[in-house]
Amino acid sequence: MDYQALLEQIQHQLQPVIGQGRVASYIPELAKVSPHHFGMAVVELDGTVHAVGDARVPFSIQSISKLFTLLMAFQCEGDALWQRVGREPSGNPFNSLVQLEHESGIPRNPFINAGALVLADILCTRFAVPENAVVEFMRRLAGEKDIQYDRRVARSERDTAHRNAAMAYFMRSFGNLRNPVPQVLDAYCRHCAIEMNCVDLARAVLVLANRGVVPHSGERLLSASAAKRVSALMLTCGTYDAAGDFAFRVGLPAKSGVGGGILALVPGECGVCVWSPGLEPSGNSLAGSLALETFTTLTGRSIF
Amino acid sequence: MDYQALLEQIQHQLQPVIGQGRVASYIPELAKVSPHHFGMAVVELDGTVHAVGDARVPFSIQSISKLFTLLMAFQCEGDALWQRVGREPSGNPFNSLVQLEHESGIPRNPFINAGALVLADILCTRFAVPENAVVEFMRRLAGEKDIQYDRRVARSERDTAHRNAAMAYFMRSFGNLRNPVPQVLDAYCRHCAIEMNCVDLARAVLVLANRGVVPHSGERLLSASAAKRVSALMLTCGTYDAAGDFAFRVGLPAKSGVGGGILALVPGECGVCVWSPGLEPSGNSLAGSLALETFTTLTGRSIF
Amino acid sequence: MDYQALLEQIQHQLQPVIGQGRVASYIPELAKVSPHHFGMAVVELDGTVHAVGDARVPFSIQSISKLFTLLMAFQCEGDALWQRVGREPSGNPFNSLVQLEHESGIPRNPFINAGALVLADILCTRFAVPENAVVEFMRRLAGEKDIQYDRRVARSERDTAHRNAAMAYFMRSFGNLRNPVPQVLDAYCRHCAIEMNCVDLARAVLVLANRGVVPHSGERLLSASAAKRVSALMLTCGTYDAAGDFAFRVGLPAKSGVGGGILALVPGECGVCVWSPGLEPSGNSLAGSLALETFTTLTGRSIF
Amino acid sequence: MDYQALLEQIQHQLQPVIGQGRVASYIPELAKVSPHHFGMAVVELDGTVHAVGDARVPFSIQSISKLFTLLMAFQCEGDALWQRVGREPSGNPFNSLVQLEHESGIPRNPFINAGALVLADILCTRFAVPENAVVEFMRRLAGEKDIQYDRRVARSERDTAHRNAAMAYFMRSFGNLRNPVPQVLDAYCRHCAIEMNCVDLARAVLVLANRGVVPHSGERLLSASAAKRVSALMLTCGTYDAAGDFAFRVGLPAKSGVGGGILALVPGECGVCVWSPGLEPSGNSLAGSLALETFTTLTGRSIF
Repeated sequence: MDYQALLEQIQHQLQPVIGQGRVASYIPELAKVSPHHFGMAVVELDGTVHAVGDARVPFSIQSISKLFTLLMAFQCEGDALWQRVGREPSGNPFNSLVQLEHESGIPRNPFINAGALVLADILCTRFAVPENAVVEFMRRLAGEKDIQYDRRVARSERDTAHRNAAMAYFMRSFGNLRNPVPQVLDAYCRHCAIEMNCVDLARAVLVLANRGVVPHSGERLLSASAAKRVSALMLTCGTYDAAGDFAFRVGLPAKSGVGGGILALVPGECGVCVWSPGLEPSGNSLAGSLALETFTTLTGRSIF
Repeated sequence: MDYQALLEQIQHQLQPVIGQGRVASYIPELAKVSPHHFGMAVVELDGTVHAVGDARVPFSIQSISKLFTLLMAFQCEGDALWQRVGREPSGNPFNSLVQLEHESGIPRNPFINAGALVLADILCTRFAVPENAVVEFMRRLAGEKDIQYDRRVARSERDTAHRNAAMAYFMRSFGNLRNPVPQVLDAYCRHCAIEMNCVDLARAVLVLANRGVVPHSGERLLSASAAKRVSALMLTCGTYDAAGDFAFRVGLPAKSGVGGGILALVPGECGVCVWSPGLEPSGNSLAGSLALETFTTLTGRSIF
Repeated sequence: MDYQALLEQIQHQLQPVIGQGRVASYIPELAKVSPHHFGMAVVELDGTVHAVGDARVPFSIQSISKLFTLLMAFQCEGDALWQRVGREPSGNPFNSLVQLEHESGIPRNPFINAGALVLADILCTRFAVPENAVVEFMRRLAGEKDIQYDRRVARSERDTAHRNAAMAYFMRSFGNLRNPVPQVLDAYCRHCAIEMNCVDLARAVLVLANRGVVPHSGERLLSASAAKRVSALMLTCGTYDAAGDFAFRVGLPAKSGVGGGILALVPGECGVCVWSPGLEPSGNSLAGSLALETFTTLTGRSIF
Repeated sequence: MDYQALLEQIQHQLQPVIGQGRVASYIPELAKVSPHHFGMAVVELDGTVHAVGDARVPFSIQSISKLFTLLMAFQCEGDALWQRVGREPSGNPFNSLVQLEHESGIPRNPFINAGALVLADILCTRFAVPENAVVEFMRRLAGEKDIQYDRRVARSERDTAHRNAAMAYFMRSFGNLRNPVPQVLDAYCRHCAIEMNCVDLARAVLVLANRGVVPHSGERLLSASAAKRVSALMLTCGTYDAAGDFAFRVGLPAKSGVGGGILALVPGECGVCVWSPGLEPSGNSLAGSLALETFTTLTGRSIF
């Protein structure tokens, strides 16, 4: 597969829609990003990198961080994790409290905000400075030292995180958060504020495409079965309320963020990351979703 | 892959759990079935059949019929279908009216009862006797003339279908059913009452594993893209409220029924069908779910 | 209290708003009524009648019938009635299925449609032709032979009663309806289609204002305690989702209907009925609500 | 009416049930109170006091404070108050977040926790130390200097107020709280922690029974119309989810608290307060509810 030519074709085809959609505005710092960015990268299991556009421009990974805090929390807790967070699609907007109320403070899955707050709580218990541990984890997976979180974005998010605070206190009332709520919120907002580029993210996700082993280091991070299971969760729950539609159109395990990034993988082959800040109403990158749909249409590389 | 040896191993391993779970009791005729049945079949793309246990004993396919009425309705309506039924997991019990109320009478997906009632309504519009058209379609896909629906089961289901009647009238109040409600309910209950065995079902689903072409006849029923998309829907929505969990544990597109059948596929390879009437609380066959989980664990054949 | 002068003052004050609001359109026959009607009547315990405007023009009483079918069902069942229908405000639109789903098919109160369907079911069990029994009951209370239901309205309502059918089948699925659903719906729609005028309704409600005794005949229909309790239910649940607001503004027990009637009472003093077909979004008569608010403001005759 | 004899009869009749029910346990300080207390007081408009049992033992007024913070906030804001809080029964448990989510952060009424948090927010804006202002207001109404809030109870409640914190942050996310959430929660918990006895509460509520004028001082606190409207709110919303049932059984405007107090009034006649800490599942005092039901049965003094 000539991925480089493919990426160039996708970039060309998508030109008319780049800049469409709305940049996330609820975090003031994110609202400043231009909607006209577009970058896309494919990294193969052997490390070969293909990239177009702004694929090396760092952006705020936001909810993509949930995929990696899930890997860390899963490593820490094993299957006991699933007593505190479910594995079912939410069927409701990603920050809904209704579901928490009906289901006794157990979030539907780790990729909605409530679920990721539980992950952050677990990391707060295990690590003195959980945000540093997450950053360090990303560096290991991406083989890249120059990864950091953006303090201004973290602070901007923290100042406006009233709804996340509501969910955190609500889960606390059910006993499903153990650390002080402000500390969990701090950690959560810093995880979301990590900055990375498409190439590094596509490389970081190879651990799943490679069934649990980091290809560049040979380190086994999780079992083959666990890697497949996390991939399954990405497919059913990784793209907010549009997961069913995304699976239907794209057919790849993926995790998106309101910063405009979408990180996907082709099992056994490669990691794929696309970034374009304009969002669909569902919260997924508009151009990014179309780019991945085009990718699977042109390559025939869906999992189905 | 020596599928025959594999099926025998699975049957052996599962012996202790066969008979566990509860047989569906809300349809009196179904409640009479013994929970001790277990059958499983794999049919490869080239037509090779592997089977164990009760794989040739016919059973009531129930909600597995929704997969095939979806194929028919999708053929009839094309993408216009998605204006009347969604593609998202339901996140609620399979016969919930709450969701219909919040979403203006548009069912979440075609695999919940409300969605399948819309499919039945479409078939009522297109065919004089929709149940006969569905039976004929199943015969074509399975290459088997001896398929029928069970009139007693259909009548038994119709007599107790108060909740389905509620959903149908409710969708009618939103204008999302066009035919008289009793007629749609009749058709729906007859689709559910079709009797087939594991071998025939595994052969029938090959049209999806083979990307839209019926292998034994060479007939293209739907595009490769449509076949992948329906498979994606099976993964995200095919096993009631446990779809996320099922994808996590099994990792194959599948559609289950309260008769105890689960029909799955390995894209590009084979159809798999298992039947055992004892159900988990989610409504999926208990032994059947475990059999498929064992199948993917032993073969490494998940899609992830 | 010079009620006649008072009614004339109210009619005069309200002139500008008569005709505002929307006539109920979901029942075609009702949609034909002119919004410019306004009638109001007060009937004192001693039988003295005060009336203005269209107070003697018959209109479709619609949900006001629920008050009287409640009295009949309560007579039949006594406190056992409350095992099949609750006594709490609904907090949801008057035809919501959500609540029924969360509360196992027990409607919140007898004044929402679902609750009145249970009342109709009780009357179907007790009477061969329940609509005739209800008409006869109204005649006794109003002391007026010339009361009937309008067959065209009943049929028009029955043909469009998909949502009521949905609720009825849903309650049937929970075992909270005992008679065949079509029969219950027929009876319900005929109860709603009863035609009466303001004077007769105000006289009929005197049984509650007079603590259980029909003043003109001396017949005790229910105990003083039961009469008070039904009045309390009218206050908390009688005006759809606006019951709290209505109690706040008007402060009298009342039952409204989408035909534009509102029937109220001043305990120990009189019955009051107002009719004007233009509705507020809550389903209560716009001019009628204001007329009653003015009535209590001018007389100081609220119950608080 | 010989209220003293009446109260003694009620106390006698209720002897067997005093001590039944469960003392509120979610606030550790409250859980220490013995369930065997029972006190009841009637204070007539002319100031005559009738009392039995523990009528002069102070208890934690808890949600009864919402009635008085409502009076203060209503004085401050007038009808503008109703843009930030509704007037409808909640139809859901008293601390539900579901309703807030469906209704854009506007609580259903001022007597549920979310509504009272809005009242506390208003008082935080108007007063430097809102809890002192509320205590001062209670002293004026009760004509009693020796009223205070219990700091240990306030702190105990604050430490466990996770669900109230969730609601407060949630309303903040909708813009319906203006002051910092911790400050509003502090004030709210101190209002709830006010300690009063039955006699003082029954005297304090006379301002409503007397249509807006404090009888012992002659001070007009609110208009007659406003007093009636607040009384109407008490009837429709004052006893948590059991308001409909309470109106049905008791028929008096009332406000209850989880400390076991219920404060009621007979318009134009008297204030009535009862205290017994054992609660029904609805959160209302078990013996207290029965005492008031007996009160209206024996006196015939309901408002209906």
